[in-house]
Amino acid sequence: MAAAAPPPAPTPAPEPVTSLPETTPLFTRIRLATPSDVPQIHKLIHQMAVFERLTHLFSATESSLAATLFSPTTQPFHSFTIFLLEASPKPFAVSNVDSNPFFTPLTKFVNLSIPIEDPERETFKTTDDVTVVGFVLFFPNYSTFLGKPGFYVEDLFVRECYRRKGFGRMLLSAVATQAVKMGYGRVEWVVLDWNVNAIKFYEEMGADLLNEWRICRLTGEALQAYGGAH
Amino acid sequence: MAAAAPPPAPTPAPEPVTSLPETTPLFTRIRLATPSDVPQIHKLIHQMAVFERLTHLFSATESSLAATLFSPTTQPFHSFTIFLLEASPKPFAVSNVDSNPFFTPLTKFVNLSIPIEDPERETFKTTDDVTVVGFVLFFPNYSTFLGKPGFYVEDLFVRECYRRKGFGRMLLSAVATQAVKMGYGRVEWVVLDWNVNAIKFYEEMGADLLNEWRICRLTGEALQAYGGAH
Repeated sequence: MAAAAPPPAPTPAPEPVTSLPETTPLFTRIRLATPSDVPQIHKLIHQMAVFERLTHLFSATESSLAATLFSPTTQPFHSFTIFLLEASPKPFAVSNVDSNPFFTPLTKFVNLSIPIEDPERETFKTTDDVTVVGFVLFFPNYSTFLGKPGFYVEDLFVRECYRRKGFGRMLLSAVATQAVKMGYGRVEWVVLDWNVNAIKFYEEMGADLLNEWRICRLTGEALQAYGGAH
Repeated sequence: MAAAAPPPAPTPAPEPVTSLPETTPLFTRIRLATPSDVPQIHKLIHQMAVFERLTHLFSATESSLAATLFSPTTQPFHSFTIFLLEASPKPFAVSNVDSNPFFTPLTKFVNLSIPIEDPERETFKTTDDVTVVGFVLFFPNYSTFLGKPGFYVEDLFVRECYRRKGFGRMLLSAVATQAVKMGYGRVEWVVLDWNVNAIKFYEEMGADLLNEWRICRLTGEALQAYGGAH
């Protein structure tokens, strides 16, 4: 009935934030990690150990990470390299990370259907609006058959509240793109044979599984037994 | 019968070389490879591809190996590293390899029960008496859980006529000893799951097999598809 119809809105349109409840804008940035990121990298690695139920194997400290990941011999892409993925509700301000001589950050705008509730926002904040979402750690490996290097991805981790939104793909793609840029021949990593979801995801990204190969590891006391001998 | 016994030898003992037919002395040396070793490294890698029936994957050239294995960023032990194992019937003369700033060669004397017939002696000769026996190529990897580097062994190869004499063990042990020396946490490599002899050998050396892990490889056109994208 006409009488029940609301009167036409006499005043300005509602705030944009309430008029577009379907999407939440998010700005993302992939950049090289720096020594000042070590505390957060340490926490991310610990979360990964918890997720993999391998905390009994976790013995890294902030100082061991800082000494080994950011030593004078660890030139990005030629040694251990970390890409950090950050997110912000606002566009990233121009900062000194943009002039990094080794890598120009990759930025991307995404629209999420549901806003992310981040219970650890304070812990993973880098600046006022910027939060660390995840990381990928990789380093060169070498194929003698190809006669050229490749990259080996040791860790790929996205914090729980950011999962299933394409951020893992974004990080792994960044490594693959860097490999192509440098003329490298391969990107390799490992996956647990029962992790069918991960395997499906990796195959979708174009990877082959080398099912016949097994990893051999010499570590702990068995390795120490070689100290001094040859 | 006594009359059939040979008369006692009336004259001096035979030459030492014939009086000790049971053993053949061999001097061995493990040293860092240099750019001048590239032609022989290339041949060794090709022999490995033939042995593994993977020549269709072999595309390395002497120049691709030289450019990638001996570039300004490939500092031994912090990047791609090759130990060469050489053998000689005479002790090694003091040479400039002994003063290598990164690695003092490891020498060892072995007595072989049977002399080695080397049909490719001329091809693998480095100096008058010295022959290349095999090599191991390795480079740093990283364990975030340990918070420290390790070594990954990409290739371990001993020329056919020198196999089953402990030379493979000598090369792998040299890598393990170097890892301990540098405070590294692991030495890792891969093996084909059907290669039971190799697996037995590696387990005897103290290695564990990580049976649940599978290698993922992004290469060729699937990798090139990431060029320019992110």
